[in-house]
Amino acid sequence: MGRNIPYDIKYYIFSQDKSFELESGKKFGPITVAYETYGTLNEQKNNAILLIHALTGDTHVTSDYDKDDKTPGWWDTAVGKGKAIDTEKYFVICSNCFAGCMGTTGPASTNPDTDKPYGLEFPLTTVRDMVSVQKQLIDFLGIKKLKCIMGGSLGGMQVLEWSVLYPQMLESAIVIASAYKTSPQIIAFGEVGRNAIMADPNFKNGNYYDGAPPEKGLAIARMAAHITYLSRDSMEAKFGRDIKKDLKESDEMYGFFGPMFQVESYLRYQGRKFVQRFDANSYLYITKAMDLYDVTSGKNNLTEVINKVQCRMLVISFESDWHFRPSESWEIVKAMMNKGKEISYVNINSPYGHDAFLIKNVEMEKVISSFINTKRDK
Amino acid sequence: MGRNIPYDIKYYIFSQDKSFELESGKKFGPITVAYETYGTLNEQKNNAILLIHALTGDTHVTSDYDKDDKTPGWWDTAVGKGKAIDTEKYFVICSNCFAGCMGTTGPASTNPDTDKPYGLEFPLTTVRDMVSVQKQLIDFLGIKKLKCIMGGSLGGMQVLEWSVLYPQMLESAIVIASAYKTSPQIIAFGEVGRNAIMADPNFKNGNYYDGAPPEKGLAIARMAAHITYLSRDSMEAKFGRDIKKDLKESDEMYGFFGPMFQVESYLRYQGRKFVQRFDANSYLYITKAMDLYDVTSGKNNLTEVINKVQCRMLVISFESDWHFRPSESWEIVKAMMNKGKEISYVNINSPYGHDAFLIKNVEMEKVISSFINTKRDK
Repeated sequence: MGRNIPYDIKYYIFSQDKSFELESGKKFGPITVAYETYGTLNEQKNNAILLIHALTGDTHVTSDYDKDDKTPGWWDTAVGKGKAIDTEKYFVICSNCFAGCMGTTGPASTNPDTDKPYGLEFPLTTVRDMVSVQKQLIDFLGIKKLKCIMGGSLGGMQVLEWSVLYPQMLESAIVIASAYKTSPQIIAFGEVGRNAIMADPNFKNGNYYDGAPPEKGLAIARMAAHITYLSRDSMEAKFGRDIKKDLKESDEMYGFFGPMFQVESYLRYQGRKFVQRFDANSYLYITKAMDLYDVTSGKNNLTEVINKVQCRMLVISFESDWHFRPSESWEIVKAMMNKGKEISYVNINSPYGHDAFLIKNVEMEKVISSFINTKRDK
Repeated sequence: MGRNIPYDIKYYIFSQDKSFELESGKKFGPITVAYETYGTLNEQKNNAILLIHALTGDTHVTSDYDKDDKTPGWWDTAVGKGKAIDTEKYFVICSNCFAGCMGTTGPASTNPDTDKPYGLEFPLTTVRDMVSVQKQLIDFLGIKKLKCIMGGSLGGMQVLEWSVLYPQMLESAIVIASAYKTSPQIIAFGEVGRNAIMADPNFKNGNYYDGAPPEKGLAIARMAAHITYLSRDSMEAKFGRDIKKDLKESDEMYGFFGPMFQVESYLRYQGRKFVQRFDANSYLYITKAMDLYDVTSGKNNLTEVINKVQCRMLVISFESDWHFRPSESWEIVKAMMNKGKEISYVNINSPYGHDAFLIKNVEMEKVISSFINTKRDK
C-alpha cells in the first residue's frame, strides 16, 4: 500500500459503502478494492480496457511509467506507451482480485466483527464473486462499456464469466491460455498445494497472522504448481539434467537431499520467492475458486451459456500449454461458432507452456493489438 | 517379515556375509535382501525370470499361490500359473530393492555401528547399486544366466542397467514404461515430494523412528507423484468434476478446504493408504535414485553404452504415459537399432498413463508372453 506513486500511475483503493451478495448467497462487505490505472480515461469513457491478472498476480501491470520502478509489471512486455496494449490510446485498469492479498479485501484483511484477520472465516470465493467485485469498480469509475476486457489463465476465466454475466458492458473480450472449467488434473495439483499448506504446523487452521506463516507449505504448493506452468520441453531446454554448479560431486552429490539438479534449485528458489509476496490463505481461496470454476455451473450446456455473449471475442492458446490446453480453448471457440458469434482463435506455437502469455511474444502482441484496434461499423 | 508362507511361495531373506562397493565408491554392508519366488527352478537353472518392482513396489508379485492371500500381488494380472509370465514354466524371482522398506536393507534398518536406524546416515543409493545387489542374489541362487529380466518404470531402468552392466547374464530383457534417464520434469516432481517430506516437523532430519513418522509430508509426496501416474484423459473419465457424494453443497461446499471433488478425495485416500506401507526415508532415497539415473552417466553417448547389450530386448511404452513418455522408450529402441541389436518395440494405446503396465492389459501380456517364449537356434 505504501507504493510511491508517480504522476501518471494511479494506485487506488476503492472502498464500497455497502455489502454485496456472493455467489453462495451470503452477504459480505463492505470491502476495499486495490487497482492501478495507466493512461487516461477519455471524456466519452469509451477507451477503457480491464486487464485481469492470473492466479497470484497483482495490480502492477507495467513499470513503463516509472523509470525508478524496481518491480517490473506482470505484463511489461505487452502493456505501455506504444506497446501492443497502448496506454497512450487506452485507459488500462487492473484490480487485485477479491480474496487476494495485494490490496483488495481477502483472508488477511481485518474482520470488522472480530478486529482480527478473517483467516478461514473469509467466505469461500468464486470466479463470479471476483467478477462481481470488478463490476462494482467499473461502475464506480463511471464506465458503461469496456473497450476490451482481457486476461490469462484464471484471468481468462474471469473474462469468460464477464462475457456471459455482463455481456452488454463489453465491446470485446480476450481469453488467453484459459478454459471454461478446470480439469480434474489441475484440480488435483491444486489439492496437493492446499494440502501442503494445511499440513504446515504454522498454518494453525488459518490463524497464523500473529506468528510465523506456513511458508514451507506455501513454497511446496508453489513448486508443484510451477511445474504445470512450464512445458516439458522448456524444462528440458532450460535445465536438462544440469547439476547445480556450486556443489562438489565428491562430497555433496552423494550425501544429502538438498538441491542437486539445477531444476531442483530453481524450483526451491521459486518457492522461496513466492512466500515473500503471497499469503497462504489467499492461495487456498484463489486456487479453490479456480478449481470450482465452470462457466456452465456443472450443467454442461456450454453452447447455451455462450449464447449470452454479445461482444466479439479472441481466444489465444499456446501449443505447449498443458495447464489449460489448446483443446480447452477450442471448446470455447467451438461453442461461439455454434452460436454464430464473432470469434477469432489463435493457437500460438510457443515452447513456454502455460507461462507463455507472460513472456515476450511478438505474435501474441500483434494478434492482441490488431484485435483491439479493429474498427467496426455498428 | 511375518508373512504366512504357503508351501510353494518362498519368501526369503538372503544375508550377505561381507560388504560390497557402492557406485559412489563407498563400502557398505553386509546387507540382507528380501525376495519371493514363484514356480520351480529347473535343474539346469535356466528358467529363471527376474522381475524388478517399480518405485514403491515389493517382493509380492502374485497372490496366485495362496487362496487366502488378502494382499494381491503387484502383478497378479500378468504373473502366475498359466498366465503371461507362466510360473508353471518359469521360476520367477522378485527382490525388494536396496534402500527399500519391504525387507531389504534400507534407511529404516538398524545401523550396526550405532544400533539405531540408519536414517539419513544410509548411503545415497543409485540404480546401479540396486542392480548390483540383485546380481549378488542371482549369484547366491546359483543362476548363471537369466531367461529373462523385466520391470516397469524404475524397474525398467534397472533392467536397462543390468543389460549394460551384466550383459552376459541375460538371455532377454523387457523394459516397460521406462527411460534411460529421468527428465527434468519428473525430477521436479520428485523434488516437490522430497521437500514435502523434509518440511514435515515429524521428519527430524530422518530420525523419526522412535516417534511419529512424517506421514503428512509423505502423503503429499505421494499425491503429487500419483498425478503423474495417471493420464489426463483417464482422470477425466474416472473423476471428471464429480463432487464427493457425502457432502452437502449447502453447508460444506462453501465453507472449508476439505475434499470436495472426487479427484481430491481420491488423491487424499492414495496419500493416506501409502503412508501405512511406506517409509519416508526410503521414499527419499529411492526417488533420488530414479532422478539420478542416466545409463550414460551424463556422457550422452547412449548408442555407445547400448552397444554393451548382448541379449534381445523388448521395449514397451504406453501412448498416454507422460511420466516416461513413448518418445523416451523410443530413444532406447533407436540406440539398439543403430547398433544392429535385436530389439522389439510396442507402443500400446492404453488410456491409463504410466500406471497402464500394472493394469490388466491383454495386448501387453500377449507381447510379453510371446517374447519370453520365443525359441532361437543359437
